[in-house]
Amino acid sequence: MSQYCFGVDVGGTSVKLGLFDKEGTMLDKWEVKTRTTESGTHILPDAAASILAKMKEKSLSKEDILGVGVGVPGPVDGAGCVSTAVNLGWSFMNVKATMEELLGMHVEAGNDANVAALGEMWRGGGQGHKNLVAVTLGTGVGGGIIINGHILTGINGSAGEIGHVHVEDAETEVCCCGNKGCLEQFSSATGIVRLAKRTMEATQKATILSTEQLSAKSVFDAVKAGDEVAIEIAEQFGAYLGKALAVVAGVIDPEIFVIGGGVSKAGEVILTYIKKYYIPNVFVGSRNAIFALATLGNDAGIYGAARMVLE
Amino acid sequence: MSQYCFGVDVGGTSVKLGLFDKEGTMLDKWEVKTRTTESGTHILPDAAASILAKMKEKSLSKEDILGVGVGVPGPVDGAGCVSTAVNLGWSFMNVKATMEELLGMHVEAGNDANVAALGEMWRGGGQGHKNLVAVTLGTGVGGGIIINGHILTGINGSAGEIGHVHVEDAETEVCCCGNKGCLEQFSSATGIVRLAKRTMEATQKATILSTEQLSAKSVFDAVKAGDEVAIEIAEQFGAYLGKALAVVAGVIDPEIFVIGGGVSKAGEVILTYIKKYYIPNVFVGSRNAIFALATLGNDAGIYGAARMVLE
Repeated sequence: MSQYCFGVDVGGTSVKLGLFDKEGTMLDKWEVKTRTTESGTHILPDAAASILAKMKEKSLSKEDILGVGVGVPGPVDGAGCVSTAVNLGWSFMNVKATMEELLGMHVEAGNDANVAALGEMWRGGGQGHKNLVAVTLGTGVGGGIIINGHILTGINGSAGEIGHVHVEDAETEVCCCGNKGCLEQFSSATGIVRLAKRTMEATQKATILSTEQLSAKSVFDAVKAGDEVAIEIAEQFGAYLGKALAVVAGVIDPEIFVIGGGVSKAGEVILTYIKKYYIPNVFVGSRNAIFALATLGNDAGIYGAARMVLE
Repeated sequence: MSQYCFGVDVGGTSVKLGLFDKEGTMLDKWEVKTRTTESGTHILPDAAASILAKMKEKSLSKEDILGVGVGVPGPVDGAGCVSTAVNLGWSFMNVKATMEELLGMHVEAGNDANVAALGEMWRGGGQGHKNLVAVTLGTGVGGGIIINGHILTGINGSAGEIGHVHVEDAETEVCCCGNKGCLEQFSSATGIVRLAKRTMEATQKATILSTEQLSAKSVFDAVKAGDEVAIEIAEQFGAYLGKALAVVAGVIDPEIFVIGGGVSKAGEVILTYIKKYYIPNVFVGSRNAIFALATLGNDAGIYGAARMVLE
């Protein structure tokens, strides 16, 4: 009667956990604090203890559980090892083996952005599709690629690092990754604010935007109000992101792009500006790719982590 | 005693065929003319008849043959169907089913560029690697992507269309695909000639290059001779291609790039100019990807086609 699975999404502040049935219905979710002290050595034992406590609470035995999936913020190789996860204090961690020893159950591990993509495929904006690119527009730009229903990891665990594809030769500021001109510098929440400041400095046009209260939300609210300067910023955002996703399509030819993260809360208007630049720049074969908004929000990680053990 | 396989590479002028053992040793190769008359309806029957004749010549029975792989110049879906192959006169062709009926043997079909990538993985410049991007710099720029030893097809058969990723907003000429600013317009043999003409028109510097006899070969010969104008052209070629491959790496994170086609006959100098622009623009995780020259030349297609039936 093994019918349940757990999804664990390890973040720098909290560890999110979810209990699912194998059809993908979330039965419970909760969080524990991420203890990054002592090189993060408590993080996985804390998560494991929390899972075992939940099983006791629900009267579940190990035989009821298909497995535990874990998403972590760092590159994960095919064996479930993380080479480095700065936010957690880890230099190297065999997530799969450590959790399997702690729990005595089947464990799979993956990169958090990739796992979130799998979650959106399973129960989110990408339902019904097996070839998907998920793009998370938050503080940075995250990406996850699903091919035939499986996460594309890449040989170094760096596949889907869409936020760090080079899109602008003229950029002089350095990205967090050390390069210059990365997509993340233009199409993340912080990137949109950067674009807004530059655009407002360079224009004489009147705008309802205020340099003191700039955010991705304020920019897209102003776009919806018809503000010319905000529209100019949205065009730049769309041009960088739409053209970059056109290149992604030229490489992997997906069925669907699922756009999530804080920026996507602006809604369909985001997709309009992306598609405006995607369509004329993409290879004809991929012109009809679907663009959809993510629907799982911060739960995408626990959904996708749980889904990993069902593959 | 099924130990052999055939590889068939259908081109617009000739159909190349090869007989291989399952370890990838080529035992024989030959060609037949491509009859594009009558909507190309003779092409597959001619190829099938040629295979059956070769089996008779070699005293091979159907039981000796593991299968027949066929590469065709068009997008091929997962069922082995081509939606369109202009060079062959085909609008739709179920290559796999047609050949299986003609031969009574197992058949697989794939896009020619993807199949050539598989050939380079099996017995060419990518031997020993299972995650590979093959780039063919010929009249156009072809691409093929191998993930975990298998061709990445894409949902429309358009994965690996690296020649048509957008790299230049300022381009005014239209690419054969209908878009403007495709990689192929700058890094193919014809693209290099275009770059050379533009560079020579814009410079006052002396050069050994002659506008009457421009080719990718003459440009790279002049680079090797230290010609300043030729070096400027090579820098532009390398910048477009190196940055585009850095984006490809950000998407799929391969082990190795295998560079082939006529332009690659210039040798290692090609790789030097590509890597010069790849390294500073790629996400750090993929910085150590290997760059190698293709080694199978025009035989890559028959090698890869044969390899398809061994998967």
